[in-house]
Amino acid sequence: MPQNIPIVENILNANDRLAQENRTRIDSAGVFSINIMASPGAGKTSLIEKTLPLLKDKLRVATIDGDIATSIDADRAAAAGANAAIQINTGGDCHLDAVMLRGALEQLDLTQFDLLIVENVGNLVCPANFKLGTHKTVLVASIPEGDDKPYKYPGTYRGVDALVINKIDLLPYVEFRMDYFERGVQVLNPGVTTFPLSCRTGEGLDAWISWLMQHASHA
Amino acid sequence: MPQNIPIVENILNANDRLAQENRTRIDSAGVFSINIMASPGAGKTSLIEKTLPLLKDKLRVATIDGDIATSIDADRAAAAGANAAIQINTGGDCHLDAVMLRGALEQLDLTQFDLLIVENVGNLVCPANFKLGTHKTVLVASIPEGDDKPYKYPGTYRGVDALVINKIDLLPYVEFRMDYFERGVQVLNPGVTTFPLSCRTGEGLDAWISWLMQHASHA
Repeated sequence: MPQNIPIVENILNANDRLAQENRTRIDSAGVFSINIMASPGAGKTSLIEKTLPLLKDKLRVATIDGDIATSIDADRAAAAGANAAIQINTGGDCHLDAVMLRGALEQLDLTQFDLLIVENVGNLVCPANFKLGTHKTVLVASIPEGDDKPYKYPGTYRGVDALVINKIDLLPYVEFRMDYFERGVQVLNPGVTTFPLSCRTGEGLDAWISWLMQHASHA
Repeated sequence: MPQNIPIVENILNANDRLAQENRTRIDSAGVFSINIMASPGAGKTSLIEKTLPLLKDKLRVATIDGDIATSIDADRAAAAGANAAIQINTGGDCHLDAVMLRGALEQLDLTQFDLLIVENVGNLVCPANFKLGTHKTVLVASIPEGDDKPYKYPGTYRGVDALVINKIDLLPYVEFRMDYFERGVQVLNPGVTTFPLSCRTGEGLDAWISWLMQHASHA
């Protein structure tokens, strides 16, 4: 449907402008912000849930959780110790965009936080096309989703600033060629910061926490 | 962006008309057809890979595999014994639509097949909005992606004709409350045909194969 393309481009341009406004707002409050993307079930919410207790008394954290429906994720973030947790229900939309984030930011006094974690809708395609204005994008891959994902979803893997490889505790139980996966990642995104970890066992979380702390201290 | 809504509706109407044309073409060839949807990595390709050898000498099968990039899936289907395997690369699009399927159908002599398996792009949101013209939609859920997915992706769970619950061999290693998952499914899609199985161990594949055989024999 080629007649649709110019409209899509206009929407993306408008989105980028709003993303820039969001960034200005976040920067002026001195907050470090990340946008977490992943397939459904790769472990975005689990990562946030395990991260929050490890940042307690170190960083003040706000989470903004995007989903098609329910407030399950914001509830989990609040229970895990987020200083504020806001749920965005997209009502069917397959990604967050800068307008949605602006609406959520308006509900927060950003000066009260050191770290803003935005959890995108579970989708390995569409969220990558919509900037939100956060400082870093983080992709959560997971072992059971398979080692061919960089090859099949190059747009998402290409654009991210950090890559979490979750559920490494399942490596003994599934076929996953780490060298094949990493080769795909390196072609698309050479040298990307990578955190192999398990939200279930806690293994590898320390490096991820250090990365957040380091960036938040410079925001 | 409310100004976009009427255009989206027009595209969907046009898509539904083309889906109906696809259905007519498939019906007139006497082929049973399914559209398999799932998150990235839930096991669509693995399911097809395990299904094809079990249908050998029983059904003549064509597969059409949709992905953002690569021909990995069609290659795997051909290696597993598909009588024909066509890859659609959407070039960034997050779902198949009826136009793309029409293009693939034009490359096949449908009268040579009993079963057509369409593998959609890995995405738990967008594919559900675009009818292709197939007889049945099949959703592949997977144990490691978590028990809350029906609640978070209601649109996809609501509309499908059959539900495969893959990777049941991982149940001992992850937290997954089957009763909570099934309660969510039943609210959205009461009585939906369900196949708990493991593509890795082969457990449960027999019921799935019987279902395909039964439908293909009546097409």
